Amino acid sequence: MNKVNLAEKFSQFTEHWTPKIVGELNGQHVKLARLKGEFVWHKHDQEDELFFVVEGVLKIEFRDKTVTLHNGEFIVVPKGIEHKPVANEEVLVMLFEPATTLNTGNTENELTQHQLDRL
Amino acid sequence: MNKVNLAEKFSQFTEHWTPKIVGELNGQHVKLARLKGEFVWHKHDQEDELFFVVEGVLKIEFRDKTVTLHNGEFIVVPKGIEHKPVANEEVLVMLFEPATTLNTGNTENELTQHQLDRL
Repeated sequence: MNKVNLAEKFSQFTEHWTPKIVGELNGQHVKLARLKGEFVWHKHDQEDELFFVVEGVLKIEFRDKTVTLHNGEFIVVPKGIEHKPVANEEVLVMLFEPATTLNTGNTENELTQHQLDRL
Repeated sequence: MNKVNLAEKFSQFTEHWTPKIVGELNGQHVKLARLKGEFVWHKHDQEDELFFVVEGVLKIEFRDKTVTLHNGEFIVVPKGIEHKPVANEEVLVMLFEPATTLNTGNTENELTQHQLDRL
């Protein structure tokens, strides 16, 4: 039972779109990721997903609107809702979501991460 | 589906030890709380609980050690583990825990909050 320092964990990796597991509770994972560029449109049929911005600016495109998140802001994307994260510049995010969540949801491509590292 | 700005939510209340629900996903609540002083020893028999420090310094006492959390740090307190949050000065925290979680866990006293506000 140790504390987790986000800055220290982020210092351990530099690659984009590769979430790292940094905590687990009640069947949910806490993940950290560095995002840059455009992700793919996808949805999670069973899982709600929380994006919390630690540093930078994250746009999340939905089919009917775009939400822009800054440092200290989060959004919950409900299950079944198509979304596409976009980061014009690198952004550092913390994710809360069920341990079953696949990063690309209902799609599979070169960005799909089946096995996540634990930091 | 709107974003949540932590600073804006914290500006809506000033009282201590009264968690406010600011998000819900997968049966879990995201809560914000202002803490100051000593809480009570308690445990949650069924729920793991995450404390993330947004601003300030939070000590969490366990029976065998004390963990000190600063801004940008979190800890997961596993179910069944007795703990006592202590804040010498006011600290702003974000909590992530099952919707069933009672703030004072297995104890009940004047700090117990059965009904939480939603902001």
